[in-house]
Amino acid sequence: MNVSDLPELLRLMRATVSFHAALSSEHDQTFSLDEAELLRRGFGKRPEFGAYVADAGPKSLAGMAVHYEIEFVHTSQPLLMLKWLYVDPEYRGQRVGHNLMREVALHARATGRECFYWFVMNENMMAQSFYRGLGGTEDPKWQRWIMPAEALNQLVEDPR
Amino acid sequence: MNVSDLPELLRLMRATVSFHAALSSEHDQTFSLDEAELLRRGFGKRPEFGAYVADAGPKSLAGMAVHYEIEFVHTSQPLLMLKWLYVDPEYRGQRVGHNLMREVALHARATGRECFYWFVMNENMMAQSFYRGLGGTEDPKWQRWIMPAEALNQLVEDPR
Repeated sequence: MNVSDLPELLRLMRATVSFHAALSSEHDQTFSLDEAELLRRGFGKRPEFGAYVADAGPKSLAGMAVHYEIEFVHTSQPLLMLKWLYVDPEYRGQRVGHNLMREVALHARATGRECFYWFVMNENMMAQSFYRGLGGTEDPKWQRWIMPAEALNQLVEDPR
Repeated sequence: MNVSDLPELLRLMRATVSFHAALSSEHDQTFSLDEAELLRRGFGKRPEFGAYVADAGPKSLAGMAVHYEIEFVHTSQPLLMLKWLYVDPEYRGQRVGHNLMREVALHARATGRECFYWFVMNENMMAQSFYRGLGGTEDPKWQRWIMPAEALNQLVEDPR
């Protein structure tokens, strides 16, 4: 990604988050990223994220694969996480997503990793089918758990 | 956690990783943390992790709850992740784990969060039952996916 991609990256990030909100029938009003923040967080000394982009012409992107790392692990190698893969609807079916996933795989390989991870919504059957076609699979080893708001409150109130 | 907890924290981290390796019948030789690294990564200007600890006497810990944050999200609030909850076998059944989970919940509350996340091994039925008893649940919304080594290699070799 380049600094000049930021306006389009921001547009695609908004689209991704809106898509997820719509899939879960929620109205997500929590999107707080803007160009200045992406600049600060993606291009500083210690970038918090990176992105591979698919160009669609001058100042226009067809899609993006945004990634970040989880640093605190017990090995010497931070985990590579795919944060968002998104292709504009008008560019789907042209291997844009496939090529972006390949870029992430190349990045994984280049940084000495054997695998990478990401999250998929339960309801997103289209994404699951796409990822499965590339050899991705639901993690056979680890489940993601959550302490939801109500349980968290109960745990906090709980007298020792 | 205090700097003086580091030797015991390291011992409990090793025990956690060994426990996970044993559960999946793997021999994990990738543990690379040491005290110097924990000091650097946990007590610097930008700590990569934090931990709540249960004291068991001088220079001795009964358990720990290690946490970290995922910074790059679309909201203004980094995700709170529980990395490892571990209680020494001899101290189990005394609410040590319960109290440590409550510390994490209090931390979540104090930092304005509604929930927190963690990962549980498929095979770890004891942990699942413990977490369920506290109101935790497998994430109803997001699945964790992986691009395993073989699929990653194929994707890399794949001609465009």
